[in-house]
Amino acid sequence: MTIPIAILGATGYGGGELLRLFLRRKDVAIRHATSRTEAGKHVSSAHRNLDGLTDLRFSAPTEAELLRDCEVVFSALPHTASAKALAPFIAAGKRVVDLSGDFRLRTADAYHEAYSHTHPHPELLADAVYGLPELHRERIRGARVLASPGCFATAIELALLPAARAGVLGNRLSVVAMTGSSGSGAEATRGTHHPTRDQTLRPYKVDGHQHCNEIVQTLGEAAGSPTPFRLTFTPVSAPLVRGILAIATAPLARDLSATELETIYEEAYAGEPFIKLVRDREPEPGPVNGTNYAEVRARLSRHGELIAMCAIDNLVKGGAGQAVQSFNIMMGLPETEGLDWPGTWP
Amino acid sequence: MTIPIAILGATGYGGGELLRLFLRRKDVAIRHATSRTEAGKHVSSAHRNLDGLTDLRFSAPTEAELLRDCEVVFSALPHTASAKALAPFIAAGKRVVDLSGDFRLRTADAYHEAYSHTHPHPELLADAVYGLPELHRERIRGARVLASPGCFATAIELALLPAARAGVLGNRLSVVAMTGSSGSGAEATRGTHHPTRDQTLRPYKVDGHQHCNEIVQTLGEAAGSPTPFRLTFTPVSAPLVRGILAIATAPLARDLSATELETIYEEAYAGEPFIKLVRDREPEPGPVNGTNYAEVRARLSRHGELIAMCAIDNLVKGGAGQAVQSFNIMMGLPETEGLDWPGTWP
Amino acid sequence: MTIPIAILGATGYGGGELLRLFLRRKDVAIRHATSRTEAGKHVSSAHRNLDGLTDLRFSAPTEAELLRDCEVVFSALPHTASAKALAPFIAAGKRVVDLSGDFRLRTADAYHEAYSHTHPHPELLADAVYGLPELHRERIRGARVLASPGCFATAIELALLPAARAGVLGNRLSVVAMTGSSGSGAEATRGTHHPTRDQTLRPYKVDGHQHCNEIVQTLGEAAGSPTPFRLTFTPVSAPLVRGILAIATAPLARDLSATELETIYEEAYAGEPFIKLVRDREPEPGPVNGTNYAEVRARLSRHGELIAMCAIDNLVKGGAGQAVQSFNIMMGLPETEGLDWPGTWP
Amino acid sequence: MTIPIAILGATGYGGGELLRLFLRRKDVAIRHATSRTEAGKHVSSAHRNLDGLTDLRFSAPTEAELLRDCEVVFSALPHTASAKALAPFIAAGKRVVDLSGDFRLRTADAYHEAYSHTHPHPELLADAVYGLPELHRERIRGARVLASPGCFATAIELALLPAARAGVLGNRLSVVAMTGSSGSGAEATRGTHHPTRDQTLRPYKVDGHQHCNEIVQTLGEAAGSPTPFRLTFTPVSAPLVRGILAIATAPLARDLSATELETIYEEAYAGEPFIKLVRDREPEPGPVNGTNYAEVRARLSRHGELIAMCAIDNLVKGGAGQAVQSFNIMMGLPETEGLDWPGTWP
Repeated sequence: MTIPIAILGATGYGGGELLRLFLRRKDVAIRHATSRTEAGKHVSSAHRNLDGLTDLRFSAPTEAELLRDCEVVFSALPHTASAKALAPFIAAGKRVVDLSGDFRLRTADAYHEAYSHTHPHPELLADAVYGLPELHRERIRGARVLASPGCFATAIELALLPAARAGVLGNRLSVVAMTGSSGSGAEATRGTHHPTRDQTLRPYKVDGHQHCNEIVQTLGEAAGSPTPFRLTFTPVSAPLVRGILAIATAPLARDLSATELETIYEEAYAGEPFIKLVRDREPEPGPVNGTNYAEVRARLSRHGELIAMCAIDNLVKGGAGQAVQSFNIMMGLPETEGLDWPGTWP
Repeated sequence: MTIPIAILGATGYGGGELLRLFLRRKDVAIRHATSRTEAGKHVSSAHRNLDGLTDLRFSAPTEAELLRDCEVVFSALPHTASAKALAPFIAAGKRVVDLSGDFRLRTADAYHEAYSHTHPHPELLADAVYGLPELHRERIRGARVLASPGCFATAIELALLPAARAGVLGNRLSVVAMTGSSGSGAEATRGTHHPTRDQTLRPYKVDGHQHCNEIVQTLGEAAGSPTPFRLTFTPVSAPLVRGILAIATAPLARDLSATELETIYEEAYAGEPFIKLVRDREPEPGPVNGTNYAEVRARLSRHGELIAMCAIDNLVKGGAGQAVQSFNIMMGLPETEGLDWPGTWP
Repeated sequence: MTIPIAILGATGYGGGELLRLFLRRKDVAIRHATSRTEAGKHVSSAHRNLDGLTDLRFSAPTEAELLRDCEVVFSALPHTASAKALAPFIAAGKRVVDLSGDFRLRTADAYHEAYSHTHPHPELLADAVYGLPELHRERIRGARVLASPGCFATAIELALLPAARAGVLGNRLSVVAMTGSSGSGAEATRGTHHPTRDQTLRPYKVDGHQHCNEIVQTLGEAAGSPTPFRLTFTPVSAPLVRGILAIATAPLARDLSATELETIYEEAYAGEPFIKLVRDREPEPGPVNGTNYAEVRARLSRHGELIAMCAIDNLVKGGAGQAVQSFNIMMGLPETEGLDWPGTWP
Repeated sequence: MTIPIAILGATGYGGGELLRLFLRRKDVAIRHATSRTEAGKHVSSAHRNLDGLTDLRFSAPTEAELLRDCEVVFSALPHTASAKALAPFIAAGKRVVDLSGDFRLRTADAYHEAYSHTHPHPELLADAVYGLPELHRERIRGARVLASPGCFATAIELALLPAARAGVLGNRLSVVAMTGSSGSGAEATRGTHHPTRDQTLRPYKVDGHQHCNEIVQTLGEAAGSPTPFRLTFTPVSAPLVRGILAIATAPLARDLSATELETIYEEAYAGEPFIKLVRDREPEPGPVNGTNYAEVRARLSRHGELIAMCAIDNLVKGGAGQAVQSFNIMMGLPETEGLDWPGTWP
């Protein structure tokens, strides 16, 4: 049995990764890879890696055609546009998987604070499930509206989730996370201009990144605490293509030995198919490049603080890969289907 | 049915790529991944991408154990050492696939000229098949000693093969080819020291690269010409990790129109599973990164010369991937088995 | 005595380098750094390296103001716009230094062929001097219209100039030259988008680069030969910020020993303040990064061909630095003034 | 008047930068650039940027020769070796400038804690002055033993110095700092192997970097506080050649407005020749590449914490450049002599 899907906004990097990850699957059929501006062109015009591997072309189907042809709709559209585009499919009872920030926050107010836009469909927020399988696997199973987490949010949440859940995470989170240039999307911009991106490290949106709300919401949920975590987050543009490295420092809510801390992380991630707890080295994105894996390590500092680190591929575990992982769970397919290939290193 | 194999010299990049490519295959079982110095350590100690994906450890089996356990032996050992290590398996009638330069040249003299070493087993050269499937697919089928081509050689040969075969390649080949740093292997050296490798472009072994003989031999064979091609080849160290781009300029043996030239390439590569003839852009290694694909384009210059370009991943189509492709052919398996995944881009 | 100058189009990389090179000079005063769109802003808004080092702001002076205030006008405007902007100053008897391609070619036809535009002031071409000091030092002294060479042209010409002058350069020039991303200018474009520029090597304008005419004209002039050289030139976008490496292969017009070839290059470049003939290694751009120096080496191939290589910083010896060198000569100042600082390496 | 100097250990990056910075100075004469292994070779054999710019060769003078020939001795030797080599010069009343960690810490115990070695000359520690001009300008004037700060230490201290001095720095410092590969020195190592350094971000020496003691000592001194600061520092290897970006998060000791914080930094760094307080963007190392400048910015987070950032070139302001700055002060020369050139950008 084959599940017919559509990918809305398929020319960007999120769309390209969904295409790559679904291309060889027998259990999924890509019916539409939409693009208003590129309709009719071969998908390899935007995604050179797909050259010669498929006959798929971008299309601009009507809503009716999409409703008729597809069982699940993925959206790689920008925020706001995504919620608008997905609303009819949700209304029609289709399952949707959204890679934008539109369904991640529980309230329209939080959304407004993060994105400075009024949410176009606040009535749909209640039904959305935040697609972090390591936290919400059970809820994802029955989800109809799946909000796939942000890239930075995924890395920071995976670094801190076990501590939050165990109730040992103190309340001043200081996070620095570095990202590769693919995180900025497929459009050439000042921030991704090679001459001024290649040999520098550039903080941006200091203490003001739109993923902050998402992170605080998720960790709060994991901790079950009424007081929201206080997060100070500094994102940094780094000169690599793919990869996020998040480094979080936080007080512990109670004294812990290094062994206790290790046990908390081991138990939290036991059996998790995509979490690699690294021990004799530190997490780094290189070895998980191109894959859905995350490298995680928690350490106890000399001053008794938590230093938690996570490395992911921002476009895979921090984007399309995690969306596919949630889709697999949601549809009752093997969770690792199409995702468990080793990456290249170097 | 599962084919038991060994990988000799499995700590380097060639060995790491063989491990990656075979890890998920059901039709092949890696019985030994040998390393004298790392025996007992998990393969992820050298290959971080394999962390958590396998229980395989490096081993140091005896020759007898290897003969007993394996049907096919891959060698990723350095030249000379490779021929020495493989000789007993060849003698025992096992099939061997060699990634070094030891079995690529037809004569011990040519080998000495290229490698400045005396060939340890010249008597084995006659049986070796040069594993470029686009040229030797039929011979590979029956091969017992498979010599997998060099990385630069692969790129340059694939750029020029159709012209050579069609008898239109003139006799002054001027080639510049750039390579990523992974081509220098897993050992840190002056040439791969990041500070002095990252922001420069460095010619090396100008007109003296050891792959020259291999290229001239292969193109001569393809052309069926008695006069050896005159090749002037300048390799360049470029600041990327993976990838080779070869640019060959050559006179044509007779006048050709652009359309005739295009037809020659299309016909030569029709049905080739790993050759992508690109048309509205130029070949570049980025989109084939991590894959066994080659991008090829031939152009006619304003002065009636051939400009032929080829881009590959030096470790895959220029290394382990092509060896696996030949292995597939040799063993009667589907040629693309384990190799036809789309790469990532960006 | 201080020479008052203007820099037209000062927001781009050419303009930024002129600012950097003149900023600390006592013998030159930058009166205007013009920009229509950025007028009023501090120059560091475009050139972050100048932050805190000057009070200079971009301005949008009238032609009358420029004529009144400046003795020499540098233009870093795009081609065609540059000739239009400089014409009034030439008419008024001011000296001008043009970094665009507008005054490099001797005829309006050649200009049209290279740039697909009609030259706006063909009557000015006769007076222009091509500012390659190694060829035209004497003519530069008296120049009023100085056409500073293109970046690729500089590297390729410096590689071949001694051979051309000595009459030993044969007539089939095959050139591959790689360039850093700063060569594409300060505007973010598809070709400089970090994710798709960083880990690849991309040929472009194959056999059709606008510098071809300039190179053929200059080498022809140096050789004094009636037959134009036949040049096949493939430019490659490489993943570094600054630097060009040009590799030229050509037949020799007559048999030469390696020593004779070396002598030709040594004599040609004896006393040249910015040419470094490298001997025990190959030319590479890294060590001349940020400087006006060029590394050059000529080799004799096994087949008796010339392999000539040159490495420069595309923005300095291939741009603003060479323009300053010519300006120094033109104004009777020490040729190396402001230019003889060692670069950084690594 | 010319000051005769020696540079001990001149083949590394510290030595190379000292050579570069002194090469064009008329007030300083490099009498010896020592290297035991490279003695007799031209300095460009190690430092390609100096090719053709000097006749200087590495030498291996006796102690007596150095004492006779030089007034000031710079050491770019490794720690422990440096103190041993400098002791005779200190004893002879020469001034010394040490780029290693040997004279930075005030006690032999702190030294042992940081470097796991017994200090070879603890009796000399009392006389040493820590060469951070922004803190110790007056003491540097009379110094005879100048301990030039570490690269990470410089960046972190400059980020926090004004807050520490003003007594507003709270006591839990959480720092993440990223460094380019040149920070690892001129020897090729696993950590600087291009294939595994180029596309990743790698934490190392987490909470255990040898600069921690130096930072805590310096900030404590600046704050005049009896309680040492608690510092949690995570260094990260980043894929660029030069540059450090330090991001420090810390509670404030008392409530401050954003304006008050800004005033503290402005007043602290008013008149500092090498500190650039950036306002409408964040500090980044690119624009100070190759220079002695530091970009600094302090921000107040939404939760009332300090986010302080500093970017430097690790080899210049974080190494040889700062040593030259201190030398200038120590010798009564203009502080910016040979150091106030604009860097290149991009």
